[in-house]
Amino acid sequence: MKIPPVKGTRDFYPPEMARRNWIVDGWKKASLRNGFEEYDGPIFEYLTMYQVKSGQEIVEQLFSLQDRGGRELAIRPEITPTLARMVNQKINALPRPIKWFAVPRLCRAERPQKGRLREFFQWNVDIIGEDSGQADAEIIFTTLDYLRSVGLTTKDIQAKISSRRLLAAVLASIGIPAERLAPLYAVLDKKPKLPPETFAALLAEQVPDAGQAGKVRDLTALDSVDRIGEIAEPNEALVKAVDELRTVFDILSAMGMSEYCTFDPSIVRGLAYYTGVVFEVHDIAGELRAICGGGRYDNLLRDFGGPPIPATGMGMGDCVLEILLEERGLLEKQVPKRELEYFVALADPQMAKPVYEIVARIRSKGHSANFSYRQGGLSKQLKEAAGQNARVCVIIGQEYKDRRQVVLKDMAAGAQELVDVDQFLARL
Amino acid sequence: MKIPPVKGTRDFYPPEMARRNWIVDGWKKASLRNGFEEYDGPIFEYLTMYQVKSGQEIVEQLFSLQDRGGRELAIRPEITPTLARMVNQKINALPRPIKWFAVPRLCRAERPQKGRLREFFQWNVDIIGEDSGQADAEIIFTTLDYLRSVGLTTKDIQAKISSRRLLAAVLASIGIPAERLAPLYAVLDKKPKLPPETFAALLAEQVPDAGQAGKVRDLTALDSVDRIGEIAEPNEALVKAVDELRTVFDILSAMGMSEYCTFDPSIVRGLAYYTGVVFEVHDIAGELRAICGGGRYDNLLRDFGGPPIPATGMGMGDCVLEILLEERGLLEKQVPKRELEYFVALADPQMAKPVYEIVARIRSKGHSANFSYRQGGLSKQLKEAAGQNARVCVIIGQEYKDRRQVVLKDMAAGAQELVDVDQFLARL
Repeated sequence: MKIPPVKGTRDFYPPEMARRNWIVDGWKKASLRNGFEEYDGPIFEYLTMYQVKSGQEIVEQLFSLQDRGGRELAIRPEITPTLARMVNQKINALPRPIKWFAVPRLCRAERPQKGRLREFFQWNVDIIGEDSGQADAEIIFTTLDYLRSVGLTTKDIQAKISSRRLLAAVLASIGIPAERLAPLYAVLDKKPKLPPETFAALLAEQVPDAGQAGKVRDLTALDSVDRIGEIAEPNEALVKAVDELRTVFDILSAMGMSEYCTFDPSIVRGLAYYTGVVFEVHDIAGELRAICGGGRYDNLLRDFGGPPIPATGMGMGDCVLEILLEERGLLEKQVPKRELEYFVALADPQMAKPVYEIVARIRSKGHSANFSYRQGGLSKQLKEAAGQNARVCVIIGQEYKDRRQVVLKDMAAGAQELVDVDQFLARL
Repeated sequence: MKIPPVKGTRDFYPPEMARRNWIVDGWKKASLRNGFEEYDGPIFEYLTMYQVKSGQEIVEQLFSLQDRGGRELAIRPEITPTLARMVNQKINALPRPIKWFAVPRLCRAERPQKGRLREFFQWNVDIIGEDSGQADAEIIFTTLDYLRSVGLTTKDIQAKISSRRLLAAVLASIGIPAERLAPLYAVLDKKPKLPPETFAALLAEQVPDAGQAGKVRDLTALDSVDRIGEIAEPNEALVKAVDELRTVFDILSAMGMSEYCTFDPSIVRGLAYYTGVVFEVHDIAGELRAICGGGRYDNLLRDFGGPPIPATGMGMGDCVLEILLEERGLLEKQVPKRELEYFVALADPQMAKPVYEIVARIRSKGHSANFSYRQGGLSKQLKEAAGQNARVCVIIGQEYKDRRQVVLKDMAAGAQELVDVDQFLARL
């Protein structure tokens, strides 16, 4: 009986696993050097948790299941609701700001396509308890710090930064009613994926007045915060939102990331819970989906039954990232190849017992070692060692019987050396 | 709206995450030094995959779900079926023996209790393509190598080793029909968890003849392979099974693990697919469930539509292990505490910009650094640094304005040093 894998999932054979580990290790290192601590939650939560705030797209893509008592559960499509739940549970015991990261496995019942799978890994960094632009800047810096560390330059990627607070202030001054904002954001977020006519039709649904709709278009095309005045009359909310966004850019500039960052008011993000600064990182060529996205979500903890605590964060999936790194040739040269430190071979079939003993002693010193299960000749064993990319072959033969000496063969250089086995083991 | 976590799952706050990471890292290191390569599969598979061979207990505990096309899926309760599927898919391209490991997240809809949760992590090591006892010995050695490396001694744990092949040969010579073996193994596996009367009743169901039942009891109480002759007449299958088991013990002895290993014919393992050598590691005090278990499953790949290829492996969950390590005080002293390398503080509120700059430069050199988001006094910042277990505080004040010098304060020793900022950054 032959059973296929489920569509939209991946099998990680050792070469693919090495790539995934290299990506995840990079995420973890970037998180730690930027002062974040790791957390994780369960792979499933009560279904209702994702119906509160995640937005329609995510709710439609839930993998739901039941526990044995018939309660409705769902595999996590994102980890932010779990983060909100966990922080709320211990809110009085956690020193602030809370700087946490996670690398959850997530599932969404999407139609599998380039850069989108039903199961993926997502790097999340979040700062909870800090409402200043310092936290938003830290999130964006950490994101770019990782992307820069794996070799992506300003020729490859760009962080596009905006602010829902700013958008809301401008849209209010244009005359768009507050209750139209959420559906309008959803339309603006979809713009890059829609044919122009479809976008125009959807925009007209939300903003029937042609003059207003024109201003919305002008707004999303602005290339500088300084030109906001061309569209909207300054008011208190707008001035505050502009100041906040300027702070973020100023800190990113002090942190040496100016060249990676640009103001782009067409960025609004799809998730329903964003409230302030929002951003996405895109490939410069514009051929891929967003590499990552994030922003401020100051109401989410309160919506999950906690106190009103500000928060900001970012999520980066592994699928689009891996495509970009592959295209730029950055995986091939950076993902470590399998390597075995020692392969212990026997030149005499009688020597099996010392092979076991020496392999065990090499391993107990923390070094990797293998041996052949086949009683083949030495050349076959050396071939097996080469197949495992062994660095050194330890050959046990007559010299071992006579004087406890072994041959160390450097597999790359081919050089051989005869050494006392105890000295060899002692210097490991 | 407050939503609780699902019963039987765990939230990993940073301290719990540090424990889990330490356990998982130990598993990975032990796997790599023993020559295993890492793989992983999807979190769910088609439901039927677990109905083939996993055994009744696992089938009853499946978390099942549907994809959007209505196909029945299940969250993986074990990874061995996925391993069999993956190996079968690429059987001709994979050099043998296949020595692979994984650390999957698994889910079982069990009643949560001590050492058993609905979601857990399990270390798996498997060797595919090798039928000699060398592979079984390697699996057991790798298991014990890990347990020894975290500080568990022969006073804490014992590997109990047996063989289904041996059991089958003895039971055949006693006169138990072959078709009774599978249900009899299930009864024998449950023995430690059952009251004696219940066990006796279940045994009588499978082996109604009192004389035969007595011999089954005698068999499971044997303390040495050499005493098999007291129960069964030697036959070819029995001699072969005894030889195979002796090989395993001999290799484990050559590898220095004799003192951790004992023959125990009461070990049969619950899973339906075992065919040869089986083993479990138990705490010596016998207070906990098995720490891990494994064995040979030579028919599984064929049952999953592949060629008949021998295989042997082991699975170790994190729950029982963590309880044992905690009881022995081995977590507290070995799990690393959170540590931050640098906390950059400002002695003058005007100095925010250089703080951002220096923090970014420290991080870009690969070192961890934080700063305070609050414009509080220096003593408040030092307190925040101490709360994050910072090793060194970098203090930016008047000396920076005057001559680009910063104070480095060793947080443990209290010693302070005035250094040129560029020299400090250059030597990182």
